Amino acid sequence: MNTMQTAERQALKAYVSRFVKLTDTAFNDFCERCELHKLEKKQFLFEAGQVCRQQYFVLNGLFRSFYVDEKGNEQVLHFAIENWWTTDYESWVSERPSTLSLQALEPSQVLSISKSQLETLYDQHPMIERLFRLIAEKTYIAAQNRLKYMLSMKREDIHEEFVEVTSGFTERVPQYMVASYLGFTPEFLSMIRAKKRKKKT
Amino acid sequence: MNTMQTAERQALKAYVSRFVKLTDTAFNDFCERCELHKLEKKQFLFEAGQVCRQQYFVLNGLFRSFYVDEKGNEQVLHFAIENWWTTDYESWVSERPSTLSLQALEPSQVLSISKSQLETLYDQHPMIERLFRLIAEKTYIAAQNRLKYMLSMKREDIHEEFVEVTSGFTERVPQYMVASYLGFTPEFLSMIRAKKRKKKT
Repeated sequence: MNTMQTAERQALKAYVSRFVKLTDTAFNDFCERCELHKLEKKQFLFEAGQVCRQQYFVLNGLFRSFYVDEKGNEQVLHFAIENWWTTDYESWVSERPSTLSLQALEPSQVLSISKSQLETLYDQHPMIERLFRLIAEKTYIAAQNRLKYMLSMKREDIHEEFVEVTSGFTERVPQYMVASYLGFTPEFLSMIRAKKRKKKT
Repeated sequence: MNTMQTAERQALKAYVSRFVKLTDTAFNDFCERCELHKLEKKQFLFEAGQVCRQQYFVLNGLFRSFYVDEKGNEQVLHFAIENWWTTDYESWVSERPSTLSLQALEPSQVLSISKSQLETLYDQHPMIERLFRLIAEKTYIAAQNRLKYMLSMKREDIHEEFVEVTSGFTERVPQYMVASYLGFTPEFLSMIRAKKRKKKT
């Protein structure tokens, strides 16, 4: 098992302290149960068909979660960058095989913690359960906002909103994946981007 | 304050026990901090512009949460029926005014619990915090599934999926609201329903 070094501990501590105040004991117990993983570009954290029994904290790098739709197309559901937790909650909660795959789009480093380890921590340190309640609420809010803009915005504005919300990481993602995430064809996204460039010049 | 009677306590207990095992003390403390509300059809639990400081448990009846989009149209974001918790998490977490309104579509009864009361309960009974972590995760899973079908399904299939997932309560909702929820025009929804009726006959 790869254990965490000072830099990773500091990154996790900075994140956690935005939500809750953990005692040193609680934070140390948390770190001891996390595993560090280094991934190459295109490597998977899990693939559709596997039960997702981990939550992942991205230390650096970039991930996409996607599923294969009825027509055989890869549909991007989420991206995850530095300082985001990611998992497939549906598989995590139900313990049934995931419909999603989680793949690194850049060389990346993540921490993982398993469901059984996390449940032990919840019992020992209720403040860690609070942290994950707050993370679930925050994750839900992001999904709700995405639903809102998918239901209401003009398609041009959806792209603008996405660029704003993702504060620049769009440039790190292949544009056909951005198109998929937004529910566009790659051609439609190219057209919007070209229009925007024209407006700026 | 309207306090809970035996029937409401039993409904809440049945719901809670699907997720966690609460001690009698914890459950009684929970009930004591809940308020019972009876609403007429069309009455609001909260309206856009107010900070949403409550979570609501629907005992009976039916609600819609909606917002007014840029064109002035009421866009339905969610429905909530018996045995569902509902709130505007974004306003609840941020303590900023909500963009949503939550309105009864039938005469309804709900329990409410305030953020400050719930936070006191979390400190006293970590198992209640567990309950609300699990509720937030479940709520997120529902939103993720909705995103998946909005991104991938043919529009006819979206309606079918909705009828299936909502196990019949669609018949209790005005069809123009179902259309709004699905991101359709009312005319498009009528057309799909007419097609289906033809198929059946």
